[in-house]
Amino acid sequence: MDLILVFDYVGTMVFAISGTLTAAQKRLDWFGAIFIGFVTAIGGGTVRDMMLGNLPVSWIQSNNYFFIILAGILITIIFKKAVIKLRNTLFLFDTIGIGVFTVIGLEKALAFGISAPIAVIMGLSSAVVGGIIRDTLTNEVPLIFHKEIYATACITGAVIYLLLHYLNVPDVVCKGVTVATIIGIRLWAVKYNITMPHISMGEKE
Amino acid sequence: MDLILVFDYVGTMVFAISGTLTAAQKRLDWFGAIFIGFVTAIGGGTVRDMMLGNLPVSWIQSNNYFFIILAGILITIIFKKAVIKLRNTLFLFDTIGIGVFTVIGLEKALAFGISAPIAVIMGLSSAVVGGIIRDTLTNEVPLIFHKEIYATACITGAVIYLLLHYLNVPDVVCKGVTVATIIGIRLWAVKYNITMPHISMGEKE
Amino acid sequence: MDLILVFDYVGTMVFAISGTLTAAQKRLDWFGAIFIGFVTAIGGGTVRDMMLGNLPVSWIQSNNYFFIILAGILITIIFKKAVIKLRNTLFLFDTIGIGVFTVIGLEKALAFGISAPIAVIMGLSSAVVGGIIRDTLTNEVPLIFHKEIYATACITGAVIYLLLHYLNVPDVVCKGVTVATIIGIRLWAVKYNITMPHISMGEKE
Repeated sequence: MDLILVFDYVGTMVFAISGTLTAAQKRLDWFGAIFIGFVTAIGGGTVRDMMLGNLPVSWIQSNNYFFIILAGILITIIFKKAVIKLRNTLFLFDTIGIGVFTVIGLEKALAFGISAPIAVIMGLSSAVVGGIIRDTLTNEVPLIFHKEIYATACITGAVIYLLLHYLNVPDVVCKGVTVATIIGIRLWAVKYNITMPHISMGEKE
Repeated sequence: MDLILVFDYVGTMVFAISGTLTAAQKRLDWFGAIFIGFVTAIGGGTVRDMMLGNLPVSWIQSNNYFFIILAGILITIIFKKAVIKLRNTLFLFDTIGIGVFTVIGLEKALAFGISAPIAVIMGLSSAVVGGIIRDTLTNEVPLIFHKEIYATACITGAVIYLLLHYLNVPDVVCKGVTVATIIGIRLWAVKYNITMPHISMGEKE
Repeated sequence: MDLILVFDYVGTMVFAISGTLTAAQKRLDWFGAIFIGFVTAIGGGTVRDMMLGNLPVSWIQSNNYFFIILAGILITIIFKKAVIKLRNTLFLFDTIGIGVFTVIGLEKALAFGISAPIAVIMGLSSAVVGGIIRDTLTNEVPLIFHKEIYATACITGAVIYLLLHYLNVPDVVCKGVTVATIIGIRLWAVKYNITMPHISMGEKE
């Protein structure tokens, strides 16, 4: 299913763009922008691979990710105004990327003989950890900890993937349904502005 | 010595609770609370295992940690007022957890043929890195860098463990004395409000 | 070429000193200073080794790094005023360290059969990631993201190393020229106060 690889590349580029835009908002220099662009794009897969023992980590085994990320960063730096105007399109590709990253994380975990609940975490990590590192490096509390249904979409998608997988549904259907579920939940949540309830300390209520 | 495993589980749950409470104080959402709960509980062991090459990292090789952590997080979210009232009990279990994590880190390091001084660092990392990641992700300077004798307790315990180990003292005694030492120092330090001296720049004095 | 090892040790000690000084400026306690000193010194090589799968990571395979780092930290804590006065000398050794760390990262990457562009990233990571972790743990946006030509020096040096390497220039010349290039660019940039251009959002201009 080459479509997964295509969307993996597209998602990787969009993550690199998101990292570079964050760096620009923080008024970092070129190196900061390039570095943040990179870690946003490869952070999730890197941490997942380091935990699984899938070493060297995936992105350093091929030059494709390197050039895709570099392209995303340079496009953002050079055409920043145009890129900012494309926010809606980028959001869509970002959402597709998250779906695909979740599926890739799940597949790798299962290939390593990891149990279902932990495989869900590996799928989720692949999708969210890059953004968490991006926000931590720019000295913010990670966005995903206080905004947007996004992780929930990944978790739901991951659970569906595993159910279909254990029911022996063909691989291509598993992946398609999973990615579609994740995209669907996220678009729906953003459209109706649905967010996760916040946690608060008992005393302050 | 199954007691070590029992206290490992108890310590893991208490670390998950501590992470979730920190997330609540920061008014993060459910996902943030769950994520911080997880990394607080598994962060130390994960970094240690990734440095040693003990892969896949321990917690993803069994479902036990997953369910224990999830239970700790959900209990905290659902019964937060009750959990907050139990602070003193939690503090005790947290201290036991730190002692046990130190011992587990030491054991793993020695099993990998690591030398004594580095084994101390591996024991210490197992105990403190989860909390450091928790504080970094919630955008604070890690508590352990400016409060409480806690790392000192782990280091002292670790040195005693190694001394007894090289003197061929039976394993169960090594572990028991180590955990007891760590707990003793920490309780003593907290009781008498003993903290580490702060470092300061020469110019400002 | 034992000189590389000597400068590796010197660079490691200077990085430990830099971390300890940062901790002192932040008024952390002894443990915080020791911890930050350590991760500044070993952070870059550790992340590189974990990504490559060179495990256990280099510094835990020998006691040398441990004692060198500890010495650097203790010297800084005990003789802080003297150390602060030596800033210029330290800056020189820091620069040498960065050059040497880049070369070591490149060598390890090539030994793992990593392609040229990714080897550059591995060289760079070895040199800069320790400082990035230091700043993140002390709750600052990493200095290297908004100040000084430093990463550019490493990247330029790394590219030159690879060119010479593929031209079959003798190893000792490759390394010497690379380290000299990195030192030269950095000293030149600092002397003339040359910094990287900042990125900014289109809207705000």
